[in-house]
This record gives sequence, C-alpha cells and structure tokens, in this order.
Amino acid sequence: MTSASTAELVERTRAGDRGALARLLSLIETGGADAVDAVARLYPHTGSAWTIGVTGAPGAGKSTLTDRLIARLRRDGEEVGVLAVDPSSPLTGGAILGDRVRMQAHATDPGVFIRSMATRGHQGGLALATPQAVRVLDAAGKPWVIIETVGVGQVEVDVAGAADTTVVVVTPGWGDAIQANKAGLLEVADVLVVNKADRAGLDETVRDLRNMLEWSGSSSDWTPPIVETVATEGRGVDELWDAVTAHRAHLERDGDVATRRTARLRDELRGLVGARLGQRAASLCEGARFDELVDRVAARSVDPHAAVDALLRSDGAQP
Amino acid sequence: MTSASTAELVERTRAGDRGALARLLSLIETGGADAVDAVARLYPHTGSAWTIGVTGAPGAGKSTLTDRLIARLRRDGEEVGVLAVDPSSPLTGGAILGDRVRMQAHATDPGVFIRSMATRGHQGGLALATPQAVRVLDAAGKPWVIIETVGVGQVEVDVAGAADTTVVVVTPGWGDAIQANKAGLLEVADVLVVNKADRAGLDETVRDLRNMLEWSGSSSDWTPPIVETVATEGRGVDELWDAVTAHRAHLERDGDVATRRTARLRDELRGLVGARLGQRAASLCEGARFDELVDRVAARSVDPHAAVDALLRSDGAQP
Repeated sequence: MTSASTAELVERTRAGDRGALARLLSLIETGGADAVDAVARLYPHTGSAWTIGVTGAPGAGKSTLTDRLIARLRRDGEEVGVLAVDPSSPLTGGAILGDRVRMQAHATDPGVFIRSMATRGHQGGLALATPQAVRVLDAAGKPWVIIETVGVGQVEVDVAGAADTTVVVVTPGWGDAIQANKAGLLEVADVLVVNKADRAGLDETVRDLRNMLEWSGSSSDWTPPIVETVATEGRGVDELWDAVTAHRAHLERDGDVATRRTARLRDELRGLVGARLGQRAASLCEGARFDELVDRVAARSVDPHAAVDALLRSDGAQP
Repeated sequence: MTSASTAELVERTRAGDRGALARLLSLIETGGADAVDAVARLYPHTGSAWTIGVTGAPGAGKSTLTDRLIARLRRDGEEVGVLAVDPSSPLTGGAILGDRVRMQAHATDPGVFIRSMATRGHQGGLALATPQAVRVLDAAGKPWVIIETVGVGQVEVDVAGAADTTVVVVTPGWGDAIQANKAGLLEVADVLVVNKADRAGLDETVRDLRNMLEWSGSSSDWTPPIVETVATEGRGVDELWDAVTAHRAHLERDGDVATRRTARLRDELRGLVGARLGQRAASLCEGARFDELVDRVAARSVDPHAAVDALLRSDGAQP
C-alpha cells in the first residue's frame, strides 16, 4: 500500500466510510511504515473522543456490560467505537468472537463500530498499538470509545487503565475484591462495578472494596463510586452510566483531562522509545560483526561487558 | 570501593579466601561499575567449572535434591559452589533462607560455598547477574557450580537452562509432567528427575514424560534420562549423579561443550545489549527535552512517532 492510499484511507475514514475505518485499523494492528504514516495523518484530527476502559477478571461479565453501555449510548443517539483487546494469546481470536455474539448484535448499527484486537508480533505490541487504534476511531468522529480488555495481567491493566475513565468490574465472592486489589486494578479504577449483584456475597464484596479504597488513601479528590449491576438483565446500567459521566464532568470541571492525557502520552512515548531501542538491540545482535564478537568472548580475548561496549560504539552512539 | 580493591578481591578470591568471594558476589549482585570491573578481571580465569542447573515447580524438592547432590560431590572430595536464585520477588529473601536450613548444614564445610541471590534492581537483572556470579565461583576454583532456581517462570527457565547440564525436577501426579512441558521445562532438560517417587502416580508421570520427549522429536542425539528419586531418603541420588556425569561425558566426547557455551554467550551478550539500550531509553525519557516533546505532542504540533524520531536523533544515533 502506498502513502497516497493511506492518505486516502484517512480521508475516507474521517468522512465516515466504515470499510476504510476497518482497513486503517488492520494497518495499525500490522504496524510498520504505513501505520506510522497513518498515525501522522490521523493525529491532528484526534482528541475529541472520551475513552472508557473496561477491565476485570475473566467471567466478570465485561462483554455483557460493554454491550449494555453501547445500548445506553445509542439510546441517547451517541455513536461509539469499541476495541476488544486480548493481549493474552494470539490463539484466542476465535474465542473472542464467540464471546461477543451478543455484542455483535450492534454490528449492523451504523452508529457502532466494534473491533477485536489480538496480539500480533512482539510482546508489548498491543499496548503500543491500542492508543493508535483509539486514534483511528477518534478521528473517525466517534465521540465515545470503549476499550474492553479480555484476560488479566499487567498489559490488560495498562491498556484499560490508559483511558479517560477506567471501569473495573468484579463479582461478589470471597476474595474477588482482594484479587482485584492485588492485580493493581483498584489503583486504576475511576468507577468500580460489582456485576452479578444478585449473587451471594454482594455486601461483603462491596464492603471489602470500600475498605480497600479507604486504605489506599488516594490523594485524588475523586473517590471511585461502587455500582452494583446485573448486566444480563440490564440492572444498574443507568447508574453505571451516570457514574461514568459524573467522572467525566469531574475531570472536565477541575481541568484534569489535559493533565491525565499528557501523563498517558508520556507513558506512550516511553513505550515507543523502548520499542525502538529494543529493535535496535535486536539488529545489533545479528550479523557477522556480532558473530565475530561472540567468538572473541568465547576465546576469552575480550570480556562480555567490553564486547558490548565495542558493539554499542560501532552503533555510533555513546555506549 | 576503588578499582584497586576490586583487583585485590579478585586475587584473594582466586587464592581461596571465602570472605573475598562473598564480597565479590555482593558486588556482582549490586551491579554498577565495580561489578563490570570485577567481571573483566575474573573473566580470563573462568571456563573450568561445570555448571548444573536445577529447576522445577515449587515443592518438587529441588533444595533437598541439591543438598543430596552436594553431599554426593563431597563424597568424591569435589568442591562445589551453589547459587540459589529467586527471580520471583525481592521479598522472599527470608523465605529462601528458611527453606535452606538443610542445605546450610554444608555451610561450615570449606569445600562448599552456598549463596542465595534474590532480585535487585531492574527486571531481568538476575538473569544477567547469574552468569557473572557463576564466573566468580568458577574463578574461585570450584570445579562444580549448581544453580538452583526457586519458583517457576520464564526467568527461572532461562537461568537454570543456561547451564552445562540442566536438571528438571517434577513429582508424580496428574498433570505435573504436562505443566512442565507447557512451561518449556522439558525443552531445556538434559536430565529429568521424578522426585518423591514413593508417591502415587509415578508410573503415569514417567510414561507422560517419555511420551512428551518422543513427541518433541529433538534433533539432539542425547535423550534426557528419567531418574526416579526420593531425595528426603537419598534414594536415586547416585543414579541422578551418574546421569549428570553421563551427560557431561556425552558433551565432552562430541565436542559440543564449546558449541553450547558459545550459544549461551550469544544469549548473554544479547541480554546485556538489551539492558544497556533499555537504560539509554530510560535516560532519554527524562529531563527537560523529553518534557518539552511531550508538551508538543499533547498540543498536537507533532505526532508521537515523529516525536520519538526527534528524541532518538538527539541521541546521536540513527533513529
């Protein structure tokens, strides 16, 4: 694909062409020069979308809740883009779709755009690709973008935590709140949801969450509200939506939106620099020059650190 | 500590001074310029020790087996250095010592040197520090170095797999062999041990291991023997020792020792280059210049990738 057609894809995406939007997202997911070019073209047209991260343990009902949030947004006539991100395995692509049958009911709604993203290429690639994919939906004019993560791990917390409003979903049951705390989920939560609130153990879980929020002694002047939902029946979804919009209003009132977004950009640039230098490390460690150095270290004519110094000097930068 | 005293420590370590050896290991664990200097001084005097990695799931009895291997070596009058490596947490230092009461019985034996190493500093630091610590014991004249890993994870597999002979320990029980296979342990195993062989499920576990070894279709002409042990009673330890020495004889006969060691050096240099460029990434992403770039990206006057290009150009190397 030439640069010219990337430019065309960006223009068509901005004009509301769903096919172009889908192709741009594929391009971003694949990475490479075209993805970089696309982001450069998209970037000036971004910054309007409000992003909502939805994370929590598997089986907490994140997909069903996301589906209900989509319906809630559509009731107000709001358009929405959804990214379902699974960093855990490239093999679960099929499973994601299977889990998302319900959500796909919105797929024929022109006001909704849903996309699953699974791991491609190297580790951490998805954490770097997700903000770019959000920018595509943002530039396409979606005022709301929901980023739902599948699975639990640091990457999921990072991905879903990198939203304007992060919703953390737990279910009633001994230890669930504690697990969420251990996984660092409570730290990134702007809104807490206890889904499947018709199950036993609701009160204990709510109490646990409240205690842990108090103990955490956050310096922020926003205390995450705890919302009880039964997503399968739609119970509590309006309250969840009210909590999300209250959080947005809070950030906008206090002028914290820019601060939070700049902090996220800072993390993103750090990630990009790390990835670029990681690529450089990989390319330094291949080829005849590297083989020769390994042989010299093996022969003990140079020690490992001195060999690495020599290699980095050959790169033209200070070791 | 000045360079001069590092030189002195190296000389005293080579002369058999245990205090100097302990201080050198601390210095290696801490890292920094003194550690680099120490490795440069030690390196010409290394290459004689045979390293044995011992890994497997928690509770498999690795410490007890290691203790038995030490006793077996001492019976032949052989000196041995032991590194107990725990990459999982900096907090488990105390627990390691607790688990090692039995092994510490050898601590008063001048022919044995045991050292626990826990995580210090940055991620992956232990995987890089371990080969340097092995070199200290090697230069100190220990003909055998046992590297025992505590916990299970990629770092443990990497650390214990980076030995001349890698011993993987499992216990009887449904799924244990399968777990070891999933964790990539069978791939690095030169010798397989089914410890606690007096427990139910021994035959199935041995059969599972044998099947998985066959399926793996390794191109190597060495098939890992499966040794049954009851470490607490010392049963099977002589057979384990015979398997380790048979593996050594096999490698030495076929001239594969140098090939394997060079492959490990290659991995080590890759790791060192990655760590150095990771440090460079961290230092690029701090300070006024970085802050200014973040602000410009936030203002959308430059896109994230272009900002990273600018930052890497400022580093003096090709982006």
